[in-house]
Amino acid sequence: MAGSKRTTKKTPVTKKSGTVNPPANPMWGGQFAHAPAEILSRINNSICFDQKLYRQDIQGSIAHARMLAKQKIITDGDAKAIVTGLKSILADIEAGKFTFREALEDIHMNIESALKDRIGSAAGRLHTARSRNDQVATDFRLYVRDAFDALDNALMALQKSLIARADEHYNSIMPGFTHLQAAQPVTFGHHLLAYVEMFGRDRSRVQDARKRLNESPLGAAALAGTSFPIDREFTSKELGFDRPMANSLDAVSDRDFALEYLSVVAICAVHLSRLAEEMVSWSSAQFGFIRFSDAFSTGSSIMPQKRNPDAAELVRGKSGRLFGNLVSLLTTMKALPLAYNKDMQEDKEPVFDTASNIMLCVQAMTGMVADMAVSKSAMLNAAGVAYANATDLADWLVRELKMPFRDAHHITAKLVKIASGKSKSLEQLSLADMQSVESRIRKDVYSVLSVADSVKSRKSYGGTAPDNVKKAAANAKKRFLS
Amino acid sequence: MAGSKRTTKKTPVTKKSGTVNPPANPMWGGQFAHAPAEILSRINNSICFDQKLYRQDIQGSIAHARMLAKQKIITDGDAKAIVTGLKSILADIEAGKFTFREALEDIHMNIESALKDRIGSAAGRLHTARSRNDQVATDFRLYVRDAFDALDNALMALQKSLIARADEHYNSIMPGFTHLQAAQPVTFGHHLLAYVEMFGRDRSRVQDARKRLNESPLGAAALAGTSFPIDREFTSKELGFDRPMANSLDAVSDRDFALEYLSVVAICAVHLSRLAEEMVSWSSAQFGFIRFSDAFSTGSSIMPQKRNPDAAELVRGKSGRLFGNLVSLLTTMKALPLAYNKDMQEDKEPVFDTASNIMLCVQAMTGMVADMAVSKSAMLNAAGVAYANATDLADWLVRELKMPFRDAHHITAKLVKIASGKSKSLEQLSLADMQSVESRIRKDVYSVLSVADSVKSRKSYGGTAPDNVKKAAANAKKRFLS
Amino acid sequence: MAGSKRTTKKTPVTKKSGTVNPPANPMWGGQFAHAPAEILSRINNSICFDQKLYRQDIQGSIAHARMLAKQKIITDGDAKAIVTGLKSILADIEAGKFTFREALEDIHMNIESALKDRIGSAAGRLHTARSRNDQVATDFRLYVRDAFDALDNALMALQKSLIARADEHYNSIMPGFTHLQAAQPVTFGHHLLAYVEMFGRDRSRVQDARKRLNESPLGAAALAGTSFPIDREFTSKELGFDRPMANSLDAVSDRDFALEYLSVVAICAVHLSRLAEEMVSWSSAQFGFIRFSDAFSTGSSIMPQKRNPDAAELVRGKSGRLFGNLVSLLTTMKALPLAYNKDMQEDKEPVFDTASNIMLCVQAMTGMVADMAVSKSAMLNAAGVAYANATDLADWLVRELKMPFRDAHHITAKLVKIASGKSKSLEQLSLADMQSVESRIRKDVYSVLSVADSVKSRKSYGGTAPDNVKKAAANAKKRFLS
Amino acid sequence: MAGSKRTTKKTPVTKKSGTVNPPANPMWGGQFAHAPAEILSRINNSICFDQKLYRQDIQGSIAHARMLAKQKIITDGDAKAIVTGLKSILADIEAGKFTFREALEDIHMNIESALKDRIGSAAGRLHTARSRNDQVATDFRLYVRDAFDALDNALMALQKSLIARADEHYNSIMPGFTHLQAAQPVTFGHHLLAYVEMFGRDRSRVQDARKRLNESPLGAAALAGTSFPIDREFTSKELGFDRPMANSLDAVSDRDFALEYLSVVAICAVHLSRLAEEMVSWSSAQFGFIRFSDAFSTGSSIMPQKRNPDAAELVRGKSGRLFGNLVSLLTTMKALPLAYNKDMQEDKEPVFDTASNIMLCVQAMTGMVADMAVSKSAMLNAAGVAYANATDLADWLVRELKMPFRDAHHITAKLVKIASGKSKSLEQLSLADMQSVESRIRKDVYSVLSVADSVKSRKSYGGTAPDNVKKAAANAKKRFLS
Repeated sequence: MAGSKRTTKKTPVTKKSGTVNPPANPMWGGQFAHAPAEILSRINNSICFDQKLYRQDIQGSIAHARMLAKQKIITDGDAKAIVTGLKSILADIEAGKFTFREALEDIHMNIESALKDRIGSAAGRLHTARSRNDQVATDFRLYVRDAFDALDNALMALQKSLIARADEHYNSIMPGFTHLQAAQPVTFGHHLLAYVEMFGRDRSRVQDARKRLNESPLGAAALAGTSFPIDREFTSKELGFDRPMANSLDAVSDRDFALEYLSVVAICAVHLSRLAEEMVSWSSAQFGFIRFSDAFSTGSSIMPQKRNPDAAELVRGKSGRLFGNLVSLLTTMKALPLAYNKDMQEDKEPVFDTASNIMLCVQAMTGMVADMAVSKSAMLNAAGVAYANATDLADWLVRELKMPFRDAHHITAKLVKIASGKSKSLEQLSLADMQSVESRIRKDVYSVLSVADSVKSRKSYGGTAPDNVKKAAANAKKRFLS
Repeated sequence: MAGSKRTTKKTPVTKKSGTVNPPANPMWGGQFAHAPAEILSRINNSICFDQKLYRQDIQGSIAHARMLAKQKIITDGDAKAIVTGLKSILADIEAGKFTFREALEDIHMNIESALKDRIGSAAGRLHTARSRNDQVATDFRLYVRDAFDALDNALMALQKSLIARADEHYNSIMPGFTHLQAAQPVTFGHHLLAYVEMFGRDRSRVQDARKRLNESPLGAAALAGTSFPIDREFTSKELGFDRPMANSLDAVSDRDFALEYLSVVAICAVHLSRLAEEMVSWSSAQFGFIRFSDAFSTGSSIMPQKRNPDAAELVRGKSGRLFGNLVSLLTTMKALPLAYNKDMQEDKEPVFDTASNIMLCVQAMTGMVADMAVSKSAMLNAAGVAYANATDLADWLVRELKMPFRDAHHITAKLVKIASGKSKSLEQLSLADMQSVESRIRKDVYSVLSVADSVKSRKSYGGTAPDNVKKAAANAKKRFLS
Repeated sequence: MAGSKRTTKKTPVTKKSGTVNPPANPMWGGQFAHAPAEILSRINNSICFDQKLYRQDIQGSIAHARMLAKQKIITDGDAKAIVTGLKSILADIEAGKFTFREALEDIHMNIESALKDRIGSAAGRLHTARSRNDQVATDFRLYVRDAFDALDNALMALQKSLIARADEHYNSIMPGFTHLQAAQPVTFGHHLLAYVEMFGRDRSRVQDARKRLNESPLGAAALAGTSFPIDREFTSKELGFDRPMANSLDAVSDRDFALEYLSVVAICAVHLSRLAEEMVSWSSAQFGFIRFSDAFSTGSSIMPQKRNPDAAELVRGKSGRLFGNLVSLLTTMKALPLAYNKDMQEDKEPVFDTASNIMLCVQAMTGMVADMAVSKSAMLNAAGVAYANATDLADWLVRELKMPFRDAHHITAKLVKIASGKSKSLEQLSLADMQSVESRIRKDVYSVLSVADSVKSRKSYGGTAPDNVKKAAANAKKRFLS
Repeated sequence: MAGSKRTTKKTPVTKKSGTVNPPANPMWGGQFAHAPAEILSRINNSICFDQKLYRQDIQGSIAHARMLAKQKIITDGDAKAIVTGLKSILADIEAGKFTFREALEDIHMNIESALKDRIGSAAGRLHTARSRNDQVATDFRLYVRDAFDALDNALMALQKSLIARADEHYNSIMPGFTHLQAAQPVTFGHHLLAYVEMFGRDRSRVQDARKRLNESPLGAAALAGTSFPIDREFTSKELGFDRPMANSLDAVSDRDFALEYLSVVAICAVHLSRLAEEMVSWSSAQFGFIRFSDAFSTGSSIMPQKRNPDAAELVRGKSGRLFGNLVSLLTTMKALPLAYNKDMQEDKEPVFDTASNIMLCVQAMTGMVADMAVSKSAMLNAAGVAYANATDLADWLVRELKMPFRDAHHITAKLVKIASGKSKSLEQLSLADMQSVESRIRKDVYSVLSVADSVKSRKSYGGTAPDNVKKAAANAKKRFLS
C-alpha cells in the first residue's frame, strides 16, 4: 500500500503536502495511531474563519450547560463552573487576549480546550448529549439570525435616507427612461420611492426568512437525538428560538436557512446595483444630474481632475461576489446525502463574506443617497427633450377626440416625425401643422404638452403626479420607518 | 454611414443577418421609414416563447377592458366586444386553432391584432391607459403566481407520499450516515420525515413569496402612471391581487418576484437532489436498500441486465438548470437602470424552464417515493456494522459511571480499537475485554449495545425512537396535509 | 410496496404522473415486464431536444458502419444497406418529412428504428461494438465542434465590421472614460480596436478549445472498450477527428469540452455586454455619440417618439443566460462518479441554447457596428470638457521642468481647481494664473493642451495617436482577417 | 444639499458610516477639500487583500524604473535609488517587517509611500508614464501567471500519483459503473487513467491560457498610452512577457485572463469533485474498495469508531466556491463600459481565493491517491455480481452466431431474466437453459463469461484489457511527466 511509504520520522519544517503532524487530534484522535497529514490539516482546519462564531458558540454552550444541570444530567456545580469559564473566555476573546490555535481545528475545540485549561475536568461534561453537528448548526443559525437583523436595520436606514430625499424632491422633474431613452417625465422623488418599495420587499424577505430560520437544532446530537433526558424547549427558549426543530436528521443536515439568506441578499444586491448604476450615470458629465461631495468621491493618481463615484461602482461590482456566494453554497449542498458531510464546512465563508459585504453596500448607499447634490435644472432640461410628451398628445387624442389608442398612436408618430424634421419640439409645432395630420386637433392640446403639466396629469394611483409623490413619501414613512 | 448600404429591394428568402424584412412593425412602426433588419427581428421577437402567457394576457386584458368601461373611458359596447373577442381568441388558442405570427413579435401584439381582425376598431381602444410595460408585468406576475400554486400543491403531494412511507417504516432500522460512514442507527421513517421538514420549509417559502408577489402592476402604464381616471383597485381585485402596487416605476421595472421564484426553486432543488442522490446510492448493488419497479427503471441498449434509476439521476442533474436559471436572471437584472429595458425580455425563458422542470422533478420524486420497494433486512444489516453503537457505549459510561463525556469518548475509542483488532463487534467483546480498559464497566452495558435498543433509546424530542417517529408522522400529516 | 398499486389496465389518456405507458421500450425493455411510468417517460425522453443532433448522429453511424465492414465485423452488403438507409433518413429529416416519435425516447433510437423500417434486420447490426454512451459522446463532440467553427467565423465577421469602422474613425476624437468620467481623449477607432483585441482572444480560446476537443470517443463502447476488432483510427479520421481518445472510461464520462465551450462563450459574452452597454449609453440623448437607423431601432407601443436600441439591450441581457448555461452544466457534472450517469442528459440543452444565442448576439452586434451613424462633433465636444487634458499638463511639467510626477500631479490639481473655480478650461487659464502656482511654467505649455494635440502625443506603442490607430487597424486586418 | 451636513470637526473614534477621516488622500487628494467618508474608505480600501501582490508590484516597478532610465526619462541615479529602495522594501515585506497601512488604500500606494520615506523625492519619479491602471493590470497578470504555473505543476504531481497507482493496479478488477449500477468489469488502473486524461486536458487548458495571458499591459498608462518615449518591448521582456499588448484601452480594461483562469479551475474542480465523490463512496462500508490511513482520516467527537474521508469531502465541497468565484467575476465584469471602472477592484479576491483553494484541493487529492489502501478482493467481488458479463454474452452471440446486435441483446436479456429468477449468475446457467432460449449457443460461450476473460477481451484501443492499461500507463508517463 502506497500510503505506508509515509513516515513519522520527518518533522514538518516546511508546509508541504505529505509531511505529517506529530500529535493525534486530542478530541477525536483516540483510535488513531498517527497524526493527520499536514495537507489534511491545512484543508481541514476551519479556525481561521469559524472563529467568527465565538460569541454564538459560547452562547449555545451556556444554554446547553444550564439545561444539563436543570435536567440533573450534570451537577449544578459543574454547570456553574462551565458557565463562568465560558464567560471568562468570551471576555478574553472580545478583549483580544485569546489566542486561537490551528492545531485545535475549529472554534468548538478551541473553546472547549480553553475551558478545560480553566476549569479542569468539568469541561469534559459539557459535550454530554451534544455533538459538534448540532452545536455548529446552532451557532450558525444564531449567526445568520444576527445577520438578518443587521440587514433589516441597515435597509431601514437606507429607506429613511431615500424617503427624505424623495420628500425633498417630490416635485423635481426628471426624464423617466425606458431603454435609456427619455420616455415620459417623472419626478425625482417618484424615482427614489421606487427603490423604497424594492428595499421594502427586501426587508419583507429578510423578515420571513428570519422567522423560518428561528428554530433550534440543539439537542439533535450527532443526527439521531440522544438517550439523555434533555429539554430542548428550554435551550430553544434560552437562545431566543421559537421552538426546537422537529426532526434531528433535518436539524443537522440542512442549510436552507443559509441558502435563503444568500438568495435574499442576492436579490437585494440586484436592487442596489441598479441604483448604483444610475448614480454612476447621473454623476457623469453627460447626465450631470447629481454630484457627490468630496466625502463620496475619489481622485485619480494620474488625472487630477477626476471625481470618481467609486463607492457607487463598488456597490455595483459587489453584486458579483454576492451572486457568487449564493452559487457557491448551492453547489456545495447539491446532492449531499444525509446527514452531516464535511463538505458543509464550506457553508460559512460565503455567508461571512456576504454578511460583511452587503452591510458595506447598504451603508455606502445610504451615505451616497444623503450626500448627492441634485441638479434640478439639469434634470428638468433633460426631461423636455426627445418628445417625452408624445404620450400626452396621444392620450389627448384618445380622450378628447374619442380616437382608439392605436390610431392616436399613429397620428402622434406622424406629428413627431414632422416636428423632428423641423427640429422642433411638439409644443413648438403650429396648430396648422397639427391639423394637417388630424383636422380635429384643437388649440387646447397645447395645455397638456408642457413637461410640468404632463407630470401633474399622472394622477392615477401610484403615478408620478407631485401630489401623489408627496403623499407616497408620507405613507412610506408610516409603512417602513415606524 | 455604413447602415445606409441596407436596401429594401431584397426579400428575405434565407434567414441571414443583414437582410431586411419589408413591412414596418404595425404596432409601433409609425415613425419608421424602414423595417428592422432581419437579425434584429430574430433577436427581438419573443412570440416563440411568450405565447405561454396567452391565458394571463387575455385575463389581464379582460379586467382592463371592464375597468375602462366602468370608468367610462370606453363604452360598454366596446368593452363587451373586446371581452367577447378575447374569449373567442382564448378558446381558439386552447383548441389549438390559433396561429401565432412571428411578424407580430410578441403575445400582446398577436392577440391585439387578432382582436382587431375579429371586432374591428374597438380593439384599438383596449390599449388606452395601458402600456406593454405594465401589461407584461401583470401577465408575468399572474404566471409566476400560478407556478407558485402548482409547486405548493406538488410539494404537498410529495410530502404525502413521504409521510405514508415514513409511517410504514417508522420502525425499520437503517444506518444513519455522516460522511457516508455509518454513525448511529436511525429508522427509515425518521430519515424520510427529515425530507418532509425540508419540503415543508420549501412550501413555506413558496407561500411567503406568493403573498409578496400578489400586488397588481396594472395601471402603471409605461412607467409614470396615466392621466386617464382608471381604477387600479378594480383591476387588482378582478385579477385576484391583494392590492395595486404603490409606485408605477417600481411596478414596471422590478422582477424580484421572478428572482424569488427562481431562488425558492433552487433551494428546493437542493433538497430534491439530496434525496435523489440517496436513491441512486440506495438502489446500487452495494447498498441494496431499495429497488425501483419497472415503472421507474430504465434499461441499457448494450447491457441487458441494467436497471437504472434514471428518474432519480435526472432529478439530481436538473438541479443544474434550476441553479443556472437563477444565475441567468440575476445576471440579466444586474445594474439595469429604471425603468423597462429590453434586457428584461430575457426574464421569461428561465422562469418557464424552471416552472416545467421543477414540476417534473417533484412529480417524478413523488412517484419514486411511492414506488420504491424497501429491503428492511439490507438496511438492518448495514446498521449493525461499523461500530454504529459506539456512542451508546460512551453514553452508558457517562450516565452510569458519571464519567465526563470526553473521557468516555477516549475509552470507547480504545474498545473500538480492540474489537476491530479482533474483527468483532462491540457487543461481541467479552466483559473481561471491556474491563481491561475500564474496570467499572458492568454486564448491563450489553443492554444498550443492540441496534434496536440504540434506536429505541433516542427518545429526545425530534429523535429517532420509533415511538417518536410514529407520532411525528401523524403530526406531519396535521401540519402539512390538512 | 406502494409501487404495486400500479396497474397496466389504464391507458394514459391524460398526461398525469403515475399512469403507465403500455409498451415496454423496444430497445432496452427486454428484461422488463412493465412499461415505465408516464412521469418517467416525460422526464426521461430527450427527443424533443436531442433531435438537433440528427446530422451528427447519422454522420457517426455511417463512419461506424463503414468501419465495421472494413474490419469484416459486418458484411459489405449490410454496410451498404445501412449507409443508404441512413442517407435517406438524413434527406427526409432535412426535407422536413421525418416524424420524430416520443415513444422512441431519443435521436439514436428514432433513427435506428427508422432504419429498421427501411432496411430490415441489417439495421440491427449497426449497434455492434457500439453503445449509446460512445455514440452520444461522438454526436455531441461533433456538434460542439461545429458550434466552435460557427462562432469563430461569426467573430471574424464582427472583427471585420469593427476594423472597418475603426479605420474610418482612426482620427475621430472622443473622451476616453474611466469610472464613466472623461479621463483623457482617445480616438473612436482606438476604442473600437480594443474590442477587436478582445474578440481576437475569444477566437483564440475557441481555436484552442476546438483543438483539444477534436478526439474521437467512438469505439469506447459502453465504457470499457470492446472485444470486437474495431479500428478506431479509421472512424476518427472519417469524422475529422485528430485521433481516438486514449481511455474508454474518460471518453464516455467527461464533458469538459462542453464546459469549455460554455465558458469560452461566457467570457465572450462579457465582451459583448460591454460593447452593448456602451452602445446603449452612446445612443442616449445624453451622450448622442451614435444613432441607429430604423433597421436597428424599435419603437414603443405607447411612446411613438422612442427609438430604442433593443438589439444592444438584448445582447447585454443575454449574457445572463450564457452565464447561466455554464453554471447549469458545471452543477450537473459536479461530483458525478464515472462513467455515464443519466444526469449527463442535461448536458445538451444549455449547449444548444448557448449556441443559438451567442450566434444571435454576435450577428446582431456585427449588424449594429456597421449600422451605427457616428456623430463626430458630439464626441469631440464631450472630449474637451472635464479637464481631460490635465494629464497632458502634468506630463509637460515632468518633461519640461524635470519635476517628479507626484509633484506635477499636485500642481496640476491645483490648477484644475483654479480653472474650475473660474468656470474655465485649463487652456483658458492665463499664463499668470498658471505661474501663480508654478512660476516656471512657460507659454509653450499651451501647445499640449488642445484635445487634438493630446491625442496626437500618445505615440507610445499601443497608444491612441491617430497614426498608431491607422497602423493598428491595418495590422489587425492582417492578424485577424486573413 | 444633504452632504453639506458633513463636518470635519469629528474625529472618527468609532468605525461608523458617515463619520469622516481627517486627511485627504496623499496620492490623489490634491483637488479635494475634504477627506472621504469613513464608509467610503472602508468599502474602497483594498490593502487588506491586494497586499498579496507586493512581489509582483515591486517586480513591475523595477522593470519600469530601469526602462525610464534607459530611455533617459529619469536619470540613472534616480533609477538606481528607486531599484535599491524597492528591493529593501521587498526584503522587509518577506521578512515580515513591513507594516501595511489602511490609510494608504492599496498596495501601490503603500509601496510608493514607503519608497518616498526611504529615498526621498526620486520616488516621485517612478510614476512617470505610468498609471495605477496599467500598474495593477501588470501586477495581476503576473500573479495569475504564477497561479497557472503552480497549478500546472501541482496537476503534474497528481498525475504522477495516479499513474503510479494505475501501474500498480493495471490488472486489479473492479466493476465499471454506469448509473452507479455495475455495467462491465474494468481494471482499477484503467479507471485511474481516465482521470489522468482529464487532468491532462486541464493542464493543456492551463498552458493555453497562460500563453494567451502573457502579454504586457505596462505602458498603456491610464488608458490612452503616453507621450513619454517609453520602451514597452523592454519592460515586456524584463517581466517575462512575450510582447506588449497592442491596444492601450484593452490593456487596462479587460480581465478575460482572470476569467479564463477561474473557468479553467472550475472545470478542473469538476474533475476533482468526481474523483472525490468516488473516494467517499469507495471508502464507505458498503463499497469497501479503499481505506485511508490515519494520515487522511479524521474522527468524530461523539462517535469514536468513525474514520471520515474529510479531505475527499472538502475537495468535493470546494467545487462550490470555485464555481462561485467564476460567477462572481463574470457578474462583476458584465456590461462595464471601457476603460477602468472601480468595480474591477473586485477582480482580485475571487482569484486569490481560487488560487489557494485549488492548490489545497490538488495537493490533498495527490496525497489521498498515494495514501489509499486498495482492497482488490472487495473490488473483484463487486465486479462479478449483477450480470456485468451480459454484454460479453451478447457480443459472443453476434460474433459467433452472426446475430444482429439487437437480437443478441434481446436473447441476452431473456437469459438474464432466467438466471435472475433462479438466483444464479449467467455462468452458472446450464447449457440447456441457454439453449432453451437460443438453440445455437455452444459450450464455448462459457469461455467469455468469467470476469477476468471479460476484462481481457476489451482489447480495442483505449479499452480496459490489462495489457492495454499497462501500456497506457507507460505512455501516460511519457506524455505527461517528461
